[in-house]
Amino acid sequence: MITLFTAPTPNGHKASIMLEELGVPYKVQLVNIGIGDQKKPDYVKLNPNGRIPTIVDHENGDFAVFESGAILIYLAEKYGKLLPSDVKGRSEVIQWVMFQMGGLGPMQGQANVFFRYWPEKYQPGIDRYQKETRRIYEVLNARLEGREFLCDEYSIADIATYPWVKIHAWAGVEVEGLPHLKAWMTRMWERPAVQRGLAVPGKVDPEAILKSAQSIVVR
Amino acid sequence: MITLFTAPTPNGHKASIMLEELGVPYKVQLVNIGIGDQKKPDYVKLNPNGRIPTIVDHENGDFAVFESGAILIYLAEKYGKLLPSDVKGRSEVIQWVMFQMGGLGPMQGQANVFFRYWPEKYQPGIDRYQKETRRIYEVLNARLEGREFLCDEYSIADIATYPWVKIHAWAGVEVEGLPHLKAWMTRMWERPAVQRGLAVPGKVDPEAILKSAQSIVVR
Repeated sequence: MITLFTAPTPNGHKASIMLEELGVPYKVQLVNIGIGDQKKPDYVKLNPNGRIPTIVDHENGDFAVFESGAILIYLAEKYGKLLPSDVKGRSEVIQWVMFQMGGLGPMQGQANVFFRYWPEKYQPGIDRYQKETRRIYEVLNARLEGREFLCDEYSIADIATYPWVKIHAWAGVEVEGLPHLKAWMTRMWERPAVQRGLAVPGKVDPEAILKSAQSIVVR
Repeated sequence: MITLFTAPTPNGHKASIMLEELGVPYKVQLVNIGIGDQKKPDYVKLNPNGRIPTIVDHENGDFAVFESGAILIYLAEKYGKLLPSDVKGRSEVIQWVMFQMGGLGPMQGQANVFFRYWPEKYQPGIDRYQKETRRIYEVLNARLEGREFLCDEYSIADIATYPWVKIHAWAGVEVEGLPHLKAWMTRMWERPAVQRGLAVPGKVDPEAILKSAQSIVVR
C-alpha cells in the first residue's frame, strides 16, 4: 500500500495519474495547502520542501518520496512500467521529464502567478511567463509531430506534462496553432486512468478541507 | 568519447563537473549563447529546447542527451558512479536532483532576471524570487545539518546544486546564517574536479566566441 499526500494541482495530478495507470492500491491523504498543512512539522519530515505531492511506500519501510518527478521515476522503477529499460529509451523519457520539471512547470507556474494571483496587473511579468510557456508548448508540439506520445511509447514523460498543458487557459496561454500538441491532449484525455487521476483528491467535504489531514480511500 | 556542448553557466557547469569527477575523456564544444548559437537548427536537432548543456555520446551511436538533470543521471548510470544502486539511496539522490531542477534552478534564475537583467527596477519581482531562493537555501541548510553531503555520500545531487548556490551573490541572495550550507560549499569547492569543472569552457578566445561552434579539447 502507498499513501499519496496531495492536493488538486498539476503536480499532485502527476502522482495520482501514475498510480491510476499502474492500477495499484493507494490511499489519498489531502494536504490542505490553503491553510498551510504543507508547512506543518509532521509533513515537512516527509517532504522537506513543504510542498505537495509526497508518497509514502508502506511496502518499503514507510519510505517517503518528494518531488513529483522523483515520485514518477520511483513508481516506474518499482513496478517496471512506463519507463523503458533500455539505455536510450530510458534516458529519452528522463530527458522529457526533466524538461517538464525544469521548464514547463516552473514557467507556467510563474505565468499563473503574474496572470492570476499578483496583487497588481504587471504586464511585463505576465508577458514574460506567458511567452516562455507558449515557447515551451511549441517545443512540445514540434516533438509530437509524427509521434503519438513524447517518447513514442506512452510514459511518465506524458504523465508529467499533461496536467500542466491541460490547464493552459488558467495561465492565459493558448494552444491554438499547435495541432500535434492538441491531438496529443485528446489522446491523453481519452485514457480512463488519466481522467481518474485528475479527479483525485476528489470531491472534498468543505469541513474536511478545514481539518489538517483528511484521509480518503480511493480504492 | 563524449562531446559536451556548453557555456559558462550553472547548468553547463553541472555537466562539466560531472565529467571531471568521472575522469573520462570528453571534448568541449562552446555554444555561444550570446549570439544565439543555441537556437541554430543543427543544435536544436540535438537539444530541442535550444538551451545548454547537451552531451553527445559517441560510444552510444552519437546519442544526444539534453537537460542537465538528465545528463547527470545518464552519466551516473553509464559509469556506475555518484548515484547509489539501492532503491532508497538512488531515489533520495533523484529527489534532491529534482528539487534542484524544479526549484532552486528556476527560482534563482528568475531572481537573476529581475535583479540583474530586467529593464526596470521592479522591487516586487526582485523580492519574490530572492525570498523564494533564500527559502530554498534554508531547506538545503536544514538538510545538510549533520550531513557531509545532501545524500550522505557525495552524489549527482551535490553536483546539480553547487553551481547554483555558488553564485548566490549574482542573484543578490545571502548565505549568511546558514552554517551547514556554507560548510558544504567549502567542502564542494575543495574538490579538485569541481574546480576544474567550473573552469569549463575555459578561457575563450574573443574571436572564437564569435564563431558558431568552437571546439576546445579539454583532455
